This record gives sequence, C-alpha cells and structure tokens, in this order.
Amino acid sequence: MKKFRYLALEEQLRHKIKSQRFKEGEKIPSVRALCQHNELSKATVLHALQRLEAEGLIYAVPKSGYFVSQTLVQRNLPTKVTTPSTPTQVNVPELFRDIMSRSAAFDILPKEGAPHVTSHQKTLNRMINRAARARPEQKSNYYDEPKGQLPLREAIAELYRQRDTEILPESLCITAGCQHALFLSIMATCKTGDTVAVESPAFYGVLQQIEHLGLEVIEISSDPSTGLDLDELENKTKNWPIKACIVTPNFSTPTGSKMPPSAMQRLISLAQDKDFFIIEDDIYGELNFDNEPCLPIKAFDNCGRVILCGSFSKCLSRELRIGWVSTDRLQDKIVQLKLITQLASPQAAQGGLSEFILSGNFKRHTNQQRQRLKTQRDELLREIEKHWGKNCRFSYPNGGLSCWIELPQHIDTQRSYRQLLTKGIVLTPGPLFSANGLYKNHMRLSFSHPLTEHRRAALHVLFNTLLNQVV
Amino acid sequence: MKKFRYLALEEQLRHKIKSQRFKEGEKIPSVRALCQHNELSKATVLHALQRLEAEGLIYAVPKSGYFVSQTLVQRNLPTKVTTPSTPTQVNVPELFRDIMSRSAAFDILPKEGAPHVTSHQKTLNRMINRAARARPEQKSNYYDEPKGQLPLREAIAELYRQRDTEILPESLCITAGCQHALFLSIMATCKTGDTVAVESPAFYGVLQQIEHLGLEVIEISSDPSTGLDLDELENKTKNWPIKACIVTPNFSTPTGSKMPPSAMQRLISLAQDKDFFIIEDDIYGELNFDNEPCLPIKAFDNCGRVILCGSFSKCLSRELRIGWVSTDRLQDKIVQLKLITQLASPQAAQGGLSEFILSGNFKRHTNQQRQRLKTQRDELLREIEKHWGKNCRFSYPNGGLSCWIELPQHIDTQRSYRQLLTKGIVLTPGPLFSANGLYKNHMRLSFSHPLTEHRRAALHVLFNTLLNQVV
Repeated sequence: MKKFRYLALEEQLRHKIKSQRFKEGEKIPSVRALCQHNELSKATVLHALQRLEAEGLIYAVPKSGYFVSQTLVQRNLPTKVTTPSTPTQVNVPELFRDIMSRSAAFDILPKEGAPHVTSHQKTLNRMINRAARARPEQKSNYYDEPKGQLPLREAIAELYRQRDTEILPESLCITAGCQHALFLSIMATCKTGDTVAVESPAFYGVLQQIEHLGLEVIEISSDPSTGLDLDELENKTKNWPIKACIVTPNFSTPTGSKMPPSAMQRLISLAQDKDFFIIEDDIYGELNFDNEPCLPIKAFDNCGRVILCGSFSKCLSRELRIGWVSTDRLQDKIVQLKLITQLASPQAAQGGLSEFILSGNFKRHTNQQRQRLKTQRDELLREIEKHWGKNCRFSYPNGGLSCWIELPQHIDTQRSYRQLLTKGIVLTPGPLFSANGLYKNHMRLSFSHPLTEHRRAALHVLFNTLLNQVV
Repeated sequence: MKKFRYLALEEQLRHKIKSQRFKEGEKIPSVRALCQHNELSKATVLHALQRLEAEGLIYAVPKSGYFVSQTLVQRNLPTKVTTPSTPTQVNVPELFRDIMSRSAAFDILPKEGAPHVTSHQKTLNRMINRAARARPEQKSNYYDEPKGQLPLREAIAELYRQRDTEILPESLCITAGCQHALFLSIMATCKTGDTVAVESPAFYGVLQQIEHLGLEVIEISSDPSTGLDLDELENKTKNWPIKACIVTPNFSTPTGSKMPPSAMQRLISLAQDKDFFIIEDDIYGELNFDNEPCLPIKAFDNCGRVILCGSFSKCLSRELRIGWVSTDRLQDKIVQLKLITQLASPQAAQGGLSEFILSGNFKRHTNQQRQRLKTQRDELLREIEKHWGKNCRFSYPNGGLSCWIELPQHIDTQRSYRQLLTKGIVLTPGPLFSANGLYKNHMRLSFSHPLTEHRRAALHVLFNTLLNQVV
C-alpha cells in the first residue's frame, strides 16, 4: 500500500510541474503541508520528493524547502561549421601539447582542487589493497595473463549487459586506459598513409595519435545533439576510401552529443558496405543523465565491424589506468599489440575492480556521480545562459563531462590562452578539436568539477576576456 | 677492535680457499674449532663465515657446517654463431607469440609457483596503499603529470648515483614498464623502413616491436661474456646506415653477458661517428652478483646519444608496471609519445615506490635478491654441468636472470616445445632470440626461480627430451 501512496503523490506533483501550475523557480508546498493535505507520513512525502529531485524536476534549498527546477531549452545550439572535403595530415601545434599536458584540460581552475572522493571510491581503494595482499608472490614474479584477468573481463561484460549489450569476456582485452585502447585499435586497423574519418569537432587525443601514426584524416561534421553526420560521411567515403571511423557515440567530447540508435545501425551498414572499421570510444558511456540504457554502437554490431574501447578513468578514477578493447575479428592483433607496447596490466587494480563491480558498488557510485554531474551541468549552463546567453550558443549534453560553446565570429579563443593561464585559468580552445584549425571562435567547458565561487569567478574572467578581445 | 678481528679471520680463510689449501666441496673447520684456534668469540667467527658465504666462497649445510663452494669455470661457453651480413625484416612465428604470452617464459615449470615475497615487498605494498589513501580526490579527478612524479624521478636518479652515474630527474619520464619504455624509444628514433641493430641473440620483446613498427633489423653477434661485438657492428654500419642500436649491456637476456666499460665508450664514439642512437635496456642493471658498481652505457654519454630504459619489474615486482626513459635530446618527443600511448601513470604506485627507495628498503631488498639469484644460478649451472656438461655449452652470467645453453648441432629446441608443454614444462627455444631463425640448437634457461625438486625433475625431462630427439 505504502508504495502506491508515494507514487500517487509523486505523480500529482509531477503533473503540476509539467502543466506549469508550479512555475520554474517557485517553491512547492512544505513537507508538513504535503503531509497534512495528503494524509501521508513524513517518510512517504520525503521519499516522493527525493525521487522528483533525482529526476531533476525539483531541487532542495537547505532550511528553505523544495523549488521547481528551471528547464534549459535547447534553443541556442552551436551552428554547423563546414568541414574540408579532402583528407589532410594532422599537425598538432605546440600550444596544444601544452594544454594536453595540463591534466587540467577538464578544469578551468585546477588550483581549486577536486571535491572529496565518495565512500564508494574509498571502498575501491580497500578492495585494491586487499587484492594486492592476496598471493603477492605470484604478482611479483609473473606477469598478468595477456588479455587481462578473466574476473574483470566478466565484470565489464556484466556492465554492458546492464546496458542491453552482449559483450563476451573472451572478446575483451584489458589495457592501460582508453587512450591506450584507442592507440591499439588504430594501430590494428591502419598503417602509415591510410585515411581515417573522425567526428568534427573531435577528441584531441585521437588527433594526436593520428598525427603520430602518419595517417591522413578526414573530418566529418558532428551535430551538437545527434553526433556524426552520416550523409556527409557517406558522401566523403565515396571519394576517399577510409580504413576506420573513430567516433564517440555517447556524450562525445567536446559537444556531448548522443547518436540515436538508428544512426548507429546506419553507420554499421556503411562500414560493411565501404569496408572500414568503427573504433568506438565509449569512455563516457556510463555517464548518461536519463534513466534509459545507453547503448553503444557495438550493441548493433552483427558483422564484427565495431572495435569497442572504454575505461574507468572518467566514471570512476583517473588513477586506475585500466581500460579495455572488445573485438572478435581483431582480438589476436590487439592482444599482440598490447604485449608489444606494455606487456601486462597491474593485477591488484584488476582484482579490486572486479570485486567493486560485482558487489554493486560501481553502480551505486555511478548513480551518485551521474546525479552530481547533472546538477553541475545545470549550474554551468544556467550561469552561461544568464550572463552570456545573448553572446554565445552552446550544446546541451545529456551525459558526459563537457559542453561546446560557440562565441561570436570575431572571437579567437586560442588568442587568450596564455593571458588566462597567467591567472591560473585553463581555457580549452576550439581548434584543439580539429585537424584543420576549425572552431576558432569555439571552446569546450567542462562541468566535471563543482561550480564553486572561485570557478564561477574564473568563468566570468574567461568570458569577459574573450568577449572583450580587441579586433 | 672487534672489526679487525673478524676481518683477519675472513682474510685468512679466503686465502686458504683461493690457494686451494681448502679444496672445493671440502668442509672447513667447525665454528667451535675456529673460535678456539683463533681465540675469537662465536659471534665474531659467525660474522666472518656469513660474509664469506655472502661472497659465494663457502656455503652452509644445516647441522653439518660450512663447505667450500665449487667454482664453475667458464670453459664451456657457447660458440660464436655467424650472423647474416644484411638487414632483414622480422617475421615472428605464431609459436613465439604463444611463448611470450606465457608470462612463464622465465620459469620452466610455472605451476610450481613463486617463493614467498620478502618482508621488503610487503613494506612496499603498505607504502603504496598509504600513498593511495593520501589525497585520493586529487588522484581520481586529475591525471598524473606527463613526465611522472618528481619524487620518483629523484629516487631513480639516486639509484643511478649509487651506480656512479649521473641522471637528472628532469631527463626522466616514467613509463608503464621497460617494454613501454623501449617502444617509446624506438618510436622516437625510427620510422617505418629504417634499420636498427640488435645484439644476437636478442631480447624477443624488442624483435616483436621492430616487426610491428615495420623496421629492418641487422643482427650483431654478442659474446656470451662481453656482449656486443663492436668490430662487427662497425663493419656493418659501413654498409648499412642504422638509426638506432638496441642493447642490454648488463646481463642481457638470454646470455647474461656484461659489456666492459671500454666497449661502452667505443659504442658511444661509433654512435656519434655514424649518427645513430643507443637504446640501452637497463632492466637487469640492479641484479649484478659482484659488489662492483654496475655502470650503464649512459654513464659515459657525453653527447646525448644514449636513451636509457629501465623498470622495477625484474628487480622488485612485475606487478608495479613502472619503468622509465632517460634522455635529454629526445625528452619532449618521449613525453609526447607517452601521452599519446597511455596518457598517465598510476600515482599511488609512484608515491609508494619513492618512499620505498628513499627509506633504503629498495637497496635492502635488491641485496637479498642478488644473493638469492646468485645461489640459484649456482644451483642451476652445477646441475647442468654435472648431468649434461659433456653435451652442452653454457654462459656464466654474473647477474640478471638467465643463461644461454648451446646443445649439439643436430638438436632442434623448437621441435620439442609443444611436447614439453603437455607436461607443463615451458621451453624457451633459441630462435625466439633471432630475427633470422638462428640458434636452432640453443635455449634460454632462467634461474629466477628456486631449483625445487619439481623444477629439477622438469630440467631432467627437458634435457632428456632434447638430447634424445630422433634425427
């Protein structure tokens, strides 16, 4: 009975919010009033309110009550930028190495520091330590098995099962993070001089790998909401045979776009038709903000065309240095390249991680983290809309860590990089995400850290510096 | 005073052993007799005996006393094998991937397992765990600095200082082990189609890297005692311009050879003269069995020609996955390649390791390990000499983990690999160490694990199988 009572209240409040009986920013009736009016216990009312809060419809203000969340309308999305029609070599400027070398690229104010770790992350540390103490002589004297530990591969397969995706543990190879996974995948599919397609804007880490491996790259426009433009990809593959298409379908950096399942299926058909591999970067796949399962392209792979890469760095800890590649067709090649590049993975981290996942701690942690990131996204986007809504356009990511800002045409984000750095502010300029120097007037902003007072101030300095650039 | 008394006894006994007054295998006078005869305390006598034991001159037999060690004479060294005069492409057979994938390559009987870890290794685990608990939010949210942690780079520099070698912490870049370090170094110096020189026999890990990177390789004979044949290298570089020479000067696998300092200096002059880089694999540098400092080639590098690679995998733990590259001239390139291939190194392992080194635990651990390995080398070589001394020749390494066995010409070690594997015995056949299929009748044996009864039995099965091959 109790179950139905909180659900009824929840439904009633949701209806009043959606129908704007309760307006954005308005305070909803107090807990006491809701108890009295609906003849419910305090626990039942609180349960309903907390569920609405988790949904993002309301938010709590300490000592004051619950308020209706403001909903951001996706009306100021960045505009489409035309990408060059021919492949090009990548030539990463020195400045970008500097930015990349600041692990801070996701934090505009690195000196501000990170929030405390969750109790789940502490649990993970304990589990890793316990794994380190188990059979230490074996770990000291023998390298890990080439593919990585089976229990961890099984645990990763289980995480994908929860995303309605079947990945066989045998198809997985543990790597030293997603960057390593992507490097192995590109090496396994391409040789010097080959051409690869990337989203535009694209992840700079991949662009630097392409540069180093001497590949040609062709940029394919990516919509800030729906990702890769498949018409453009199809057209370009008519003229330029590509060996691989590297894509982050779920919450790609910088835009945070999410590819619809129908587009994923079309991409696989195209790969089959034009004989190329899809290298899927799934590093943000666990960081979706709605409750729908977030499918990877790999879920639709019926022909072995998708090489799935992922990592625990963004959803759990950058310290772990544990990632994975899943592929059936190229598995031998991937394992061989892993042995060649770094031989083996640490066993304690793998052991601790499998326990962490199988004990349910991973899910509990990511649920918390998604909620936190969603709140931080809202804070960041509201601040931008409030102060610079008329001066810029921005993407509205439903997951991941970052959004993409388009400033007026005459602004050159790169020009202000050094100046802002002297104030401890790290700007991530648009051209970092293009092999052709596109996106001069764009930048990435991340909501991976809380918008503290200092970060808010830094954001103001950042925008003011950019918007006041002398032409 | 006491100090001089034990030294006097030690000197006296050493003299009697060296002058063969005490013969090999003979029991020396009992502790009680030595006390009475020299008017010394039991503690003083035991101290002198333990020092002679550490030196390898005598060994203890429980409840029986001390005996004079048998000295192995280096009379059965493997013979020189002629290497091809032209460069070749590497084509690693499938079988070798199988061997490499058995992390067991250093253990003929992996199911036997490893001995217990030392108390020092347990201390290391505690230190890593402590480092993991310090500022965990920083580690979870930010990647490590590109070069790796400064305290660890300083600690590594200190280890080299103890080997009379100056390495600047700024010149070091932390990697995910030595394999990763070598991969970065080869990528930083060579591009597809270039030629590199390697020792012959060579480390198979490097041969596989060369194959993958599409380089040509020229094999240079390596003497089982003194390493790289510099006359041959000089001759071959007249005809074939090389970009890099990859060499393990101290206790290279498989032979265990050690390059004399004069040869190191000559190699550097040659590199300067012929414009190539020396990629030095120093992974066994801490595992020398005599008390002299064991200089790396880098100690003589006055022109930035040497790229020094190392790791803690062999001297401390294979679980750590922490190695390093030291280079001044190519530092930027190496750091960039590290970021591209795997972004960052785990910070807790680095923090724990620096503390472990600076607290003196590393030195205490390696001292113990050297002693253990030396004893195991003696056990292995004695067993070989005793049973198959007439059938084979073998190297006599003064450090490292392995020795090199030459069997009669008609034997094909590779042929028995699968057969032995069915018995759980892992043979490491000679051709694994050559790009040209040389060393058909050779194999590597490692003394990294104690010669337990089971391993001794496995050794007998191994030799009997090989020596009884039907021609």
